Amino acid sequence: MTTTRSTGAFAAFVTTWADPVETALRALLPAPTTAPSRLHEAMHYALFPGGKRLRPMLVLLGCQAAGGDPRRALRAAAALECLHTYSLVHDDLPCMDDDDLRRGRPTCHKVYGEALALLAGDALLTVAFEGAAEAGPAAVVALARASGSLGMVGGQVEDLAAEGDGAHHTLERVQWIHDHKTGALITAALLVGAHAAFPNGAPAALLDPLTRFGDLLGRAFQITDDCLDLTGTAAELGKTPLADVALGKLTWPAMVGLEKSLAQAQELAAAAAGLAPELIARSRSFRDGGGSMLDAASGLLQDVASYAVARRR
Amino acid sequence: MTTTRSTGAFAAFVTTWADPVETALRALLPAPTTAPSRLHEAMHYALFPGGKRLRPMLVLLGCQAAGGDPRRALRAAAALECLHTYSLVHDDLPCMDDDDLRRGRPTCHKVYGEALALLAGDALLTVAFEGAAEAGPAAVVALARASGSLGMVGGQVEDLAAEGDGAHHTLERVQWIHDHKTGALITAALLVGAHAAFPNGAPAALLDPLTRFGDLLGRAFQITDDCLDLTGTAAELGKTPLADVALGKLTWPAMVGLEKSLAQAQELAAAAAGLAPELIARSRSFRDGGGSMLDAASGLLQDVASYAVARRR
Repeated sequence: MTTTRSTGAFAAFVTTWADPVETALRALLPAPTTAPSRLHEAMHYALFPGGKRLRPMLVLLGCQAAGGDPRRALRAAAALECLHTYSLVHDDLPCMDDDDLRRGRPTCHKVYGEALALLAGDALLTVAFEGAAEAGPAAVVALARASGSLGMVGGQVEDLAAEGDGAHHTLERVQWIHDHKTGALITAALLVGAHAAFPNGAPAALLDPLTRFGDLLGRAFQITDDCLDLTGTAAELGKTPLADVALGKLTWPAMVGLEKSLAQAQELAAAAAGLAPELIARSRSFRDGGGSMLDAASGLLQDVASYAVARRR
Repeated sequence: MTTTRSTGAFAAFVTTWADPVETALRALLPAPTTAPSRLHEAMHYALFPGGKRLRPMLVLLGCQAAGGDPRRALRAAAALECLHTYSLVHDDLPCMDDDDLRRGRPTCHKVYGEALALLAGDALLTVAFEGAAEAGPAAVVALARASGSLGMVGGQVEDLAAEGDGAHHTLERVQWIHDHKTGALITAALLVGAHAAFPNGAPAALLDPLTRFGDLLGRAFQITDDCLDLTGTAAELGKTPLADVALGKLTWPAMVGLEKSLAQAQELAAAAAGLAPELIARSRSFRDGGGSMLDAASGLLQDVASYAVARRR
């Protein structure tokens, strides 16, 4: 069993899969010239050029960690990016965070107006489920639960409710918001990928450790995100820094300080990485020992945990 | 073969299935007391008490017409109502139609504010796909295509673009908007139901005539809707009458007049009804002749076509 840490393995994985993910995104979406063209332009504007494409990469990694060929999960990977992007477009709307800048450019509603941005978000959410369907009904259910009222949307509601509500700021509440607003979709990306690796959906024995890995990764990722809002520049972030502070958002460093936040993110990432060997051992049991894909997957899981806390944007 | 028209058959079908549909809706949605409770309250407010529940009934009818037991399609039926309701909540928002009244009560954003109404709509759309997944991946794809940028959302974009754009009003454009904004989801309801009747999705030989039936039904339904905006009262409609006129909307009677519109809706309904015998004959070929469910389904299909044009709301 290869469980050695591969430094830079995830960066290499991203390089390998970047183009296929972009191709899958363009295949899932109607072309910007398709009627109604303003709508499709707005959807493309929000999606291209992309950000980190972290969630599609996690879908592909989830597939590989479950012993599948990541190529089988490319459409589902594109789906996760559409779903993530819809959440950004809607979060940026005037009635929500009212943001002007996203991925270094004016937000979707600044360019296309509120009505079209709202509808482009709706259409991105909808097409996400068309893409996820390729990974089977269990993937669709996992994605819907993670992104709906008990997941991402629920987290966004609590995030908005917490703004300026300083009297009720507790660490438990921040964690609840993180887990729902960000963590649920990160975990779902891995699960959707795992489902794509099995004709009738992945077995629970594999989904359980993958869920624990994803939940730790999500927390490490979101605490790091909160810290980057304090320490990053607009050029690095592609969005307005100190935006959380300006909105009076409930963040991890606001509760425990920057230094302790960074240390805790490291601990969470290490705990996630520690789960990789067990997870891959489970996968091997379904794959007669598995092949070279599974050898690499353990190192990739450990490396993506490091990436989550070491990144600059 | 029983192809005789059963007068009132669809009304009886609705009576039979009304309670099971409400139960399925409450089972698909988290309770209003579940955290975040304001979000779940807003979702319940938009869904209960309901309107006609036409789309869930079409899912159940589509399942029966495909030779399946409608009970197998109840969760998918609830999904279609969630999807329809999300579209109403978002359409009513200030940046869209800016409506105050819906189903006889203040619109969702009037009660819960814009941010929560937007998010409740997002969550309703998301949970719709969780419900549709029970009818299999083909149902998810059919629903996503019908409700996304090439379907309902696309129709809404064109509908908004056409407002006040009197120079470009043509009958072809009205039909395009009708087909996309309303027709696509009506057809999808029938298709999703048919998919629920087969373990691996319904065969194309059945989906083809069902699609033609749904498209005609959708046109008859939407022309009737446009006419009701002119002739109905607020009490009958549960929403503001003459709202289309006030917004300068592109409607069928605005193009050809009320009398001709009503006659054309009747013709479309008759054409839809005429497809029922062929459709049921196809179903029988997959079911060794079929049973009493299929005997009744032919009459139901014909009756729902009459209902689409005879209704008062």
